[in-house]
Amino acid sequence: MKDLSATKLIALVGMCDGKEQYLAHLLANRMDVEIYSIKKFYSHLFEATLYPDLCFLDMSEDVSRSFMLLGSLKTLNIPTICILPSGIGLALELRCLSGGAYDVMYWPESKSEILKKTDFIFHNTIFEQLVFDKHVNREKHVSDKDNIDTLMHQILSSLSVSIDAKDSYTQGHSLRVALYSTILGKECGLDDESLTLLHYSALMHDIGKIGMPDAVLRKPGKLSDEERKIIQTHPTIGYDILKTITLMPDMSLVARFHHERWDGTGYPDGLDGVDIPLYARIVSIADAFDAMTSERSYRKPLTFEEAGKEILACKGTQFDPQLVEISSDIIQRYISNGKVLTFDDVLSTTA
Amino acid sequence: MKDLSATKLIALVGMCDGKEQYLAHLLANRMDVEIYSIKKFYSHLFEATLYPDLCFLDMSEDVSRSFMLLGSLKTLNIPTICILPSGIGLALELRCLSGGAYDVMYWPESKSEILKKTDFIFHNTIFEQLVFDKHVNREKHVSDKDNIDTLMHQILSSLSVSIDAKDSYTQGHSLRVALYSTILGKECGLDDESLTLLHYSALMHDIGKIGMPDAVLRKPGKLSDEERKIIQTHPTIGYDILKTITLMPDMSLVARFHHERWDGTGYPDGLDGVDIPLYARIVSIADAFDAMTSERSYRKPLTFEEAGKEILACKGTQFDPQLVEISSDIIQRYISNGKVLTFDDVLSTTA
Repeated sequence: MKDLSATKLIALVGMCDGKEQYLAHLLANRMDVEIYSIKKFYSHLFEATLYPDLCFLDMSEDVSRSFMLLGSLKTLNIPTICILPSGIGLALELRCLSGGAYDVMYWPESKSEILKKTDFIFHNTIFEQLVFDKHVNREKHVSDKDNIDTLMHQILSSLSVSIDAKDSYTQGHSLRVALYSTILGKECGLDDESLTLLHYSALMHDIGKIGMPDAVLRKPGKLSDEERKIIQTHPTIGYDILKTITLMPDMSLVARFHHERWDGTGYPDGLDGVDIPLYARIVSIADAFDAMTSERSYRKPLTFEEAGKEILACKGTQFDPQLVEISSDIIQRYISNGKVLTFDDVLSTTA
Repeated sequence: MKDLSATKLIALVGMCDGKEQYLAHLLANRMDVEIYSIKKFYSHLFEATLYPDLCFLDMSEDVSRSFMLLGSLKTLNIPTICILPSGIGLALELRCLSGGAYDVMYWPESKSEILKKTDFIFHNTIFEQLVFDKHVNREKHVSDKDNIDTLMHQILSSLSVSIDAKDSYTQGHSLRVALYSTILGKECGLDDESLTLLHYSALMHDIGKIGMPDAVLRKPGKLSDEERKIIQTHPTIGYDILKTITLMPDMSLVARFHHERWDGTGYPDGLDGVDIPLYARIVSIADAFDAMTSERSYRKPLTFEEAGKEILACKGTQFDPQLVEISSDIIQRYISNGKVLTFDDVLSTTA
């Protein structure tokens, strides 16, 4: 887990009109931020004296050199967000995306949108580090296998974002659950292939929510018994959607069993103990942890420390006791002196 | 397109309690149906004198031999639906799916559900034939590349079914649009890799509908101006979801541009002519064709012939004139003596 907690370096390149001050101020308390002209940045890359984790590239001034730089960043596997002037045609956006941009952003852009895009990229690159150790073995040429893993990851991540968008209180939930599950799975000793399957399965665990009525899913506050019964059908609906993916049966099983409990009082099938598939037991903890540490309409988020205590309290009833032990160890590592930690802190702390 | 219109052979194997009569009656006017005991069927397979397109396998009597047979069917790449007694535990269902079943079905089952599952499988196998010619080159051992294509296809098909489920009138819409698009693309001379990309893009063209409110999407009857404006945001929402799949940029472009018109009066960007990407122009025709030939709350479906005339009438205004010509040729081949043809007929006719 060496890289997970390392401070990220963000490069702001070719900025004009004060964007660099705005971005540097916004991101500085979460990451290291450095500001470069296109020319200086290019020479740093050329001499390999710099390897940022993310690059914001302003496309509004020196367009042709910006595109040259974009191509180099793509080759170097450095995720880049291109910043475009608002009101410009779609053609430039498409050129950026086909030229290798990870995402584009029209300026001015809201703080929450900038942070959302930044987190999405870091989630993805952290997953890649966790599973593929790409930061260690940087290779110029990506093999077909890597391409396919990346493609599957891109597809399932994108879809998970659209699943979460159904529910006003779960933005980024599936991405975080997938990240937490992968951390926990890695600590359990799963190999890379298993971690990838676990990650995919976790990204899709809530897909059954696509079938839930908006009125129930978006209801602020607590649900009635009737509404809770409707929500509790999402695991079987998810299972029915995913079971035709016979080449990855784990995806449907995680969707179906992530609300089962170790003591057999969960739903939909009341399985208990190790009859619940391992991946579903892992996702169950990650899911509960993220729900507790995220904001809901009727309560404030718990701190990581508080949520860790809740997980521990459910050892052997709701959760697999062995997995609870491992989770507690992991959570301890992310708690520093009673500070209220959040997902963003996990991404940015140097703990 | 040789296999597309060939009559399908369905084998009903090991049936008890009159299931075979029920299924044979239900399916007989669409496909050739033959009834076998497990033993007789096994020996036919063993001697390679039989190669059905789909197998219904009853798991309620001779369980252990049924599972042996299931393994052989998987090896032979013959899609199989296992029939389980209602009220039986989940364990048997999971064993069937992990043992190679394409799907399971609890008995008794409604006619519409049986037809839905049958069509889903035929859609998938027809796609494989169209693109990979698997019926011609049956190989015992599937290569990694085939596995990945199959996996991607399974994932995107499953998700497309869940997109369509959002809207009460679009069951199977994305699967049919993907099939029609692939037929049209093949006729345009696209190579296999392009056809696969086109197929994936078509499966996902309506993904932006996940973000639409139920009240609008499920409204029976015509939409108000305000509601139509909401629905018309689905291409950009779909584009935003899919644009992070940078390894397959076509997916996001088809989502964004499938409601553009050749004459520039479409939405969201008002592109015209060949500025609209080719795949989007193809999906646009397939999309309109399926909408016209499917039932809506406020009108009956058009016949293939009627829909073909409508497409022709929009040559050069809504649709690419060259693609309209090719489409008309294809549609002509599926029209027989004024009969009211449906999607099911395309699957089953020997035309």
